[in-house]
Amino acid sequence: MTGPAPAPAPVIGVLGGMGPAATAHFQTRLVLLTDAATDAEHPIVVTWSDPGVPNRVAALQGTGPSPVPALRSGLTVLAGAGAQVLAVPCNTVHPFLPEALAGFDLQLVDMIEVAAQETAATGISTAAVLATAATLEHGMYARALDARSVVAHTPEEGTQAAVLELIAAVKAGVPIRDLVSGYEALVDELTEAGCDGVLVACSEISAVAAASADAGAQLPVPAVDAVDALARATLVAVGRTPRA
Amino acid sequence: MTGPAPAPAPVIGVLGGMGPAATAHFQTRLVLLTDAATDAEHPIVVTWSDPGVPNRVAALQGTGPSPVPALRSGLTVLAGAGAQVLAVPCNTVHPFLPEALAGFDLQLVDMIEVAAQETAATGISTAAVLATAATLEHGMYARALDARSVVAHTPEEGTQAAVLELIAAVKAGVPIRDLVSGYEALVDELTEAGCDGVLVACSEISAVAAASADAGAQLPVPAVDAVDALARATLVAVGRTPRA
Repeated sequence: MTGPAPAPAPVIGVLGGMGPAATAHFQTRLVLLTDAATDAEHPIVVTWSDPGVPNRVAALQGTGPSPVPALRSGLTVLAGAGAQVLAVPCNTVHPFLPEALAGFDLQLVDMIEVAAQETAATGISTAAVLATAATLEHGMYARALDARSVVAHTPEEGTQAAVLELIAAVKAGVPIRDLVSGYEALVDELTEAGCDGVLVACSEISAVAAASADAGAQLPVPAVDAVDALARATLVAVGRTPRA
Repeated sequence: MTGPAPAPAPVIGVLGGMGPAATAHFQTRLVLLTDAATDAEHPIVVTWSDPGVPNRVAALQGTGPSPVPALRSGLTVLAGAGAQVLAVPCNTVHPFLPEALAGFDLQLVDMIEVAAQETAATGISTAAVLATAATLEHGMYARALDARSVVAHTPEEGTQAAVLELIAAVKAGVPIRDLVSGYEALVDELTEAGCDGVLVACSEISAVAAASADAGAQLPVPAVDAVDALARATLVAVGRTPRA
């Protein structure tokens, strides 16, 4: 060698467990969305999956304890393992991340921002946001989409109840294949309601949306998936090329 | 509370990246095979996925560098994160683990042993071992199965070539659904060759086998999956109940 060795690629840290199925789904998508033909072309990833982080929905609604101490414990592990770029595959927890990250030298890839960006880039003007009640009430996506001139559509009561049932079913371990038709019916309903696109903004639903796409479903409107947007942006942040 | 708080459940460490898709598949199966209705009933899992570990096939065949230094780097991260029980979702690397683990206080769940145990418990008398050439040549499964009075059948040349193509396709990112029919044809061939069961002993093939089972395929003989056996035994090792 005549020059210095190339700097090693940054290590990706994944703060997960919120929930565990969503974390496993993110890891699967991160691998599948990496443009690589061999093992060695993939990035190093360290994942802390603590399913005991206090409920994010309750915390965001002010009815439960803060998740911040548990998040900081996880961040300590990830920083200690050498992580430099951070992905957190849980939409609802994102408002707690600035407080949790104080003092850590970790570059957060903000799932809300990158998902809103991908929604706008897809050309969607009114996006149905599929998310927990807490995420919707907080307004994190409404603001991020509004900043990009996309209208965030909050599903009406009956539709939102079906969204929450879908999330609970994934958390309870119902096989994903049994949930695909329910997800597709939801997208049909939201298209009828005037949306020209769907933003999958809960990582549990992402697993179902990916299974629907894998099975070759033709949805009436495009669906942007926050997990996939996060995976792609994380790969870019460590200098890798996402698969086209 | 009148008594002391219960001891926290042991943390599971996953030494992964060999390859990255296999690691993501193991994490998915670990979640799905946990008998839990809520997030909080799942164990804490820390995963180190380093796809740069030197090629295990070459190392086992004596034609490449040892993976042990890279494995020890990963084990240092996992031990530092508090892992107590260790799962390594790569069959081929198992012969290197005793050397890699020297000096670490980590309880290994031996994938080869638990997979051989599950094969015997399934009542299989002649098991087709679907594995890398290096795993077969090393004889790790032949010995573990022989100790349980199960005959290990090594696929003949043409069939083994198809096995290796399947592994390479998963590593290259070919969609799993496109590989299922090839896997099922392999099982048919091996049944014709006199096997009364299949032992899926390469984590890349496990992802395909799981997709086949998910799609409801009826194989002519039972298939035992080393990844699932490892996931179940790991859950037992941390005091959790695998899903029936």
